[in-house]
Amino acid sequence: MPSYSAPTADMQFILHDVLNATQSDISGYDELERDFTSAVLEEAGKLASDVLAPLNPVGDTEGCTLENGVVRTPTGFKDAFEKIKEGGWTALDCDPEYGGQGMPYLLGTAVGEIFVSANMAFNMYQGLTHGAYSAIHTHGTDDQKATYLPKMVSCDWTGTMNLTEPHCGTDLGLMRTKAEPQDDGTYKITGQKIFISAGDHDLSENVIHLVLAKIPGGPEGIKGVSLFIVPKFMVNEDGSLGDRNAVSVGKIEEKMGIHGNSTCVMNYDGATGYLLGTQHKGMRAMFTMMNEARLGVGLQGYAQAEAAYQNAVIYANDRLQGRDVTGAKNPDGPADPLIVHPDIRRSLMDQKSFVEGARALTFWGAMLIDKVRRSGDKEADGLISLLTPVIKGFQTDKGYECATAAQQVYGGHGYIEEWGMSQFVRDARIAMIYEGANGIQALDLVGRKLALDGGKHVMAFFEMVKSFIKENEGDERLDEFLAPLKAGSKDLQSAAMYFMAQGVKNPNNALAGSYDFMHLFGHVCLGLMWARMAKAAFGALDAGASDTQFYETKIATGRYYMARQMPATAMHLARITSGADPVMALDAENF
Amino acid sequence: MPSYSAPTADMQFILHDVLNATQSDISGYDELERDFTSAVLEEAGKLASDVLAPLNPVGDTEGCTLENGVVRTPTGFKDAFEKIKEGGWTALDCDPEYGGQGMPYLLGTAVGEIFVSANMAFNMYQGLTHGAYSAIHTHGTDDQKATYLPKMVSCDWTGTMNLTEPHCGTDLGLMRTKAEPQDDGTYKITGQKIFISAGDHDLSENVIHLVLAKIPGGPEGIKGVSLFIVPKFMVNEDGSLGDRNAVSVGKIEEKMGIHGNSTCVMNYDGATGYLLGTQHKGMRAMFTMMNEARLGVGLQGYAQAEAAYQNAVIYANDRLQGRDVTGAKNPDGPADPLIVHPDIRRSLMDQKSFVEGARALTFWGAMLIDKVRRSGDKEADGLISLLTPVIKGFQTDKGYECATAAQQVYGGHGYIEEWGMSQFVRDARIAMIYEGANGIQALDLVGRKLALDGGKHVMAFFEMVKSFIKENEGDERLDEFLAPLKAGSKDLQSAAMYFMAQGVKNPNNALAGSYDFMHLFGHVCLGLMWARMAKAAFGALDAGASDTQFYETKIATGRYYMARQMPATAMHLARITSGADPVMALDAENF
Repeated sequence: MPSYSAPTADMQFILHDVLNATQSDISGYDELERDFTSAVLEEAGKLASDVLAPLNPVGDTEGCTLENGVVRTPTGFKDAFEKIKEGGWTALDCDPEYGGQGMPYLLGTAVGEIFVSANMAFNMYQGLTHGAYSAIHTHGTDDQKATYLPKMVSCDWTGTMNLTEPHCGTDLGLMRTKAEPQDDGTYKITGQKIFISAGDHDLSENVIHLVLAKIPGGPEGIKGVSLFIVPKFMVNEDGSLGDRNAVSVGKIEEKMGIHGNSTCVMNYDGATGYLLGTQHKGMRAMFTMMNEARLGVGLQGYAQAEAAYQNAVIYANDRLQGRDVTGAKNPDGPADPLIVHPDIRRSLMDQKSFVEGARALTFWGAMLIDKVRRSGDKEADGLISLLTPVIKGFQTDKGYECATAAQQVYGGHGYIEEWGMSQFVRDARIAMIYEGANGIQALDLVGRKLALDGGKHVMAFFEMVKSFIKENEGDERLDEFLAPLKAGSKDLQSAAMYFMAQGVKNPNNALAGSYDFMHLFGHVCLGLMWARMAKAAFGALDAGASDTQFYETKIATGRYYMARQMPATAMHLARITSGADPVMALDAENF
Repeated sequence: MPSYSAPTADMQFILHDVLNATQSDISGYDELERDFTSAVLEEAGKLASDVLAPLNPVGDTEGCTLENGVVRTPTGFKDAFEKIKEGGWTALDCDPEYGGQGMPYLLGTAVGEIFVSANMAFNMYQGLTHGAYSAIHTHGTDDQKATYLPKMVSCDWTGTMNLTEPHCGTDLGLMRTKAEPQDDGTYKITGQKIFISAGDHDLSENVIHLVLAKIPGGPEGIKGVSLFIVPKFMVNEDGSLGDRNAVSVGKIEEKMGIHGNSTCVMNYDGATGYLLGTQHKGMRAMFTMMNEARLGVGLQGYAQAEAAYQNAVIYANDRLQGRDVTGAKNPDGPADPLIVHPDIRRSLMDQKSFVEGARALTFWGAMLIDKVRRSGDKEADGLISLLTPVIKGFQTDKGYECATAAQQVYGGHGYIEEWGMSQFVRDARIAMIYEGANGIQALDLVGRKLALDGGKHVMAFFEMVKSFIKENEGDERLDEFLAPLKAGSKDLQSAAMYFMAQGVKNPNNALAGSYDFMHLFGHVCLGLMWARMAKAAFGALDAGASDTQFYETKIATGRYYMARQMPATAMHLARITSGADPVMALDAENF
């Protein structure tokens, strides 16, 4: 069975050495002292290793079941959920007014990574609740907040997001679920929603569904979509639970992975719903949570890679097979451990350098979200909007690739379910699909975010990279970081300029290169992160840090990323500048 | 449920327009007339679409079961197997002396692709039998051949290959299974073998296991390994079946995919075995089949991608979602089909251009194998030995990547098992692992094949590319094929030279770049295939071929590969020339 150990040292390094959290003027960041975050992360790590990780294969094997309308989660999930609730983990970054602990989203993100690595399917129950919490917190009336939020902060009640219908996922303008206004101000919701994660289960007393639906007579398409709160059990005025609402589970989907999470078809048969926010502005309400939700999925990508990587390292150290060509490393044994072989190391370094870079990028993204929320910072808002599709798309693609590479280290054993490596791959796969498939992320990036506010945010990003390079050019030790970063950033700018020049002639010239642009951008982001991390590591060493091995390893890992991953930027640029013609040449019937 | 339609037109194009099969002087190739191969492929295609493909999800869902020592295959497999046998498909390229049809391996390969695309797990039962047939055919005594081959050609008896043990897969020198010589010239085989594909089942009367084992007192390590024939049921002198041999199934493994194939733990408890070939030369005997077996796995890689691609195209044409940004293509419908979107096309073109290139490379490889077998051509032998790890490693990596991309086209539906796209991904995954994990392919390529016969074969390959470019430089229409091919080939040569120069100083400088070299080589091979295909397509158009759409599509698809995939060669070269230092920098405990 795979094991998991929270990478708390690396998290501490990012929080304190790289992001200098306590030095920030973001309100509440002063609480993030090194000892405090260490205690929180260690505690979360203990829960993850001892409780959540052992349940991960159980969830995969048992899955969820639907019997007589009742959904059951896998053995042990209920007890584990109680432990999460009791520890206050569900309330970590929630509003104190509703029982939350008011911690920064940054800390919630670090803890989230730990839980997701240990058991992604399990963590989705609280993750979805957190998303629904945010929606009600941002758009709800005082009454709605008072009714739902305290119970959702504690996860006594859980939440869901209902967007997709059988005939529409990406194109929600085609939505058919309708919401008919009633005399009492409520709505009757009728329709079918599919792919509803944590749609129903036995972990909570009530499930609060957030449902997108159309009010008859409203605007056509996406502009006529509104958002509704539809509780599974009606809530009485005193807060107690009333009758069952007219919402039921049609079936649980058989999926490739995340079997521990109940992905439901939800049927709404005139269920009572309450308008959340403004009529016909449902999409806008959803979008205010998008950055957070997509950052969370980008986190899932590298978190699965982290868990898979940890086990690949253990296996590579344990499994004796072949000899080091430069001389036996385990001469008294029958063979050397796998880890002596250069190609095994190449693979492990690919994984390690991606995961640590992605962690830094994600934490930085979380910090930007805190800046927006806690300080109303407009520039941070623009920047995180720009980076969100990169974090989601790039990190989930690479996370899957790395989980596959970790599985590969096991050879034939990797293909056998018992060893658990297959689950990491199968679970990681969904992150490329949901919360906007990665092609949609690329479209969002190139079709919307690049030009947002006159291209101001992407210019700010380039400027940030440039300043960083300029500030640090004096430090020769950073040369092998700055040079590839500079080259990568130049490739990214060339790609953006190509889009500007050629996209005017034909938008397909930009869209045909969108996916490569997203990956090119991802590499530049990770290149920047590695340069920042290298600088921080050298700084710590200069300051006489005692854990020299940690910092030297960090620098060596960064060198690997710069030397071995950054060359991808030129390839992506070459693909992009080949334009739309090769992509669009065929008539549809000739595929 | 996914569908499958054999790409017979493309196969005919490769056989006749590109490889000019009937013009070859390989013995037996004169039989491969256009009409004949067309009839064979159409017939195979019918069987694949009507019988095998519908059983593919059945095999995935039901899997194989072991009850009271008896293995049962999924519903319908037995009937389908009878149909394959009745049609003579198992005998296609086997020796007529033993009931085979004596067709070239090239034709067997084309038919094999069709069956593998339709149902990979099912096809493995006859595929493994074919491998065991080849081993006995090459190394068996006349008696052994007479006893086993006729029954194996007809697949009344099936075969297996037993290499792996719990503690050794790649490093077979660690093998523990022993073979004790008996007075009657037989051996008693004792030990446990794992991951035995088609290890036992209800499709055939007998199972002929080929088992690697060590004769006590023989040389240490890999040099003391011998190969044995161990039938499940003993064979009487008259050819009838006798007692059950002391071999049994320990369990059936739960795997990520290919559930329709029974992957068994096999226990040998003093089972009677017959030496195949020479004592202690078991590995050599296995290696004579290696090129064929690995080519077959490389075929599985792109064959799964082909099946997945076909379904992705259907879905992309059916599913209405969003609008073409350059103007609605389906103005009367609620939305345009997915296929209007540039990023969907980018993905489909990635898949299409890979699959067709890989098919050409694989067919060419099969032709080289025919040259070796039928004409004893030494140069062909050297060339296919060199190309085998590239075909196996590159094509299975890319096949998995493409199957994943095809699944992605389905959005959320791709993740739901019911749609069948997950199975293509899960089944394709194994091809990267078995028959030598892809890291081993890279090691074989760089550590052995490059330097084989003084580097003669890789030089011959470079020379072949160079001559092709030179011969065709006059044709301007080929410029956009020849230029990237030239650049790619130059990158490949630079990488080989880097290995020569730096590998002497430290072999890790070569080994740390082996995986990238395999991929770089793969792109150059596909670049060469696309240049040859483009030339053939232009030639056909010049000659007034009626199916202009086919040839124009072919050229456009090739252009895509050259423009969008060949830029990867520079990236791989950059990674390679960064050397071993970044890869080997960490001590094992710092991962």
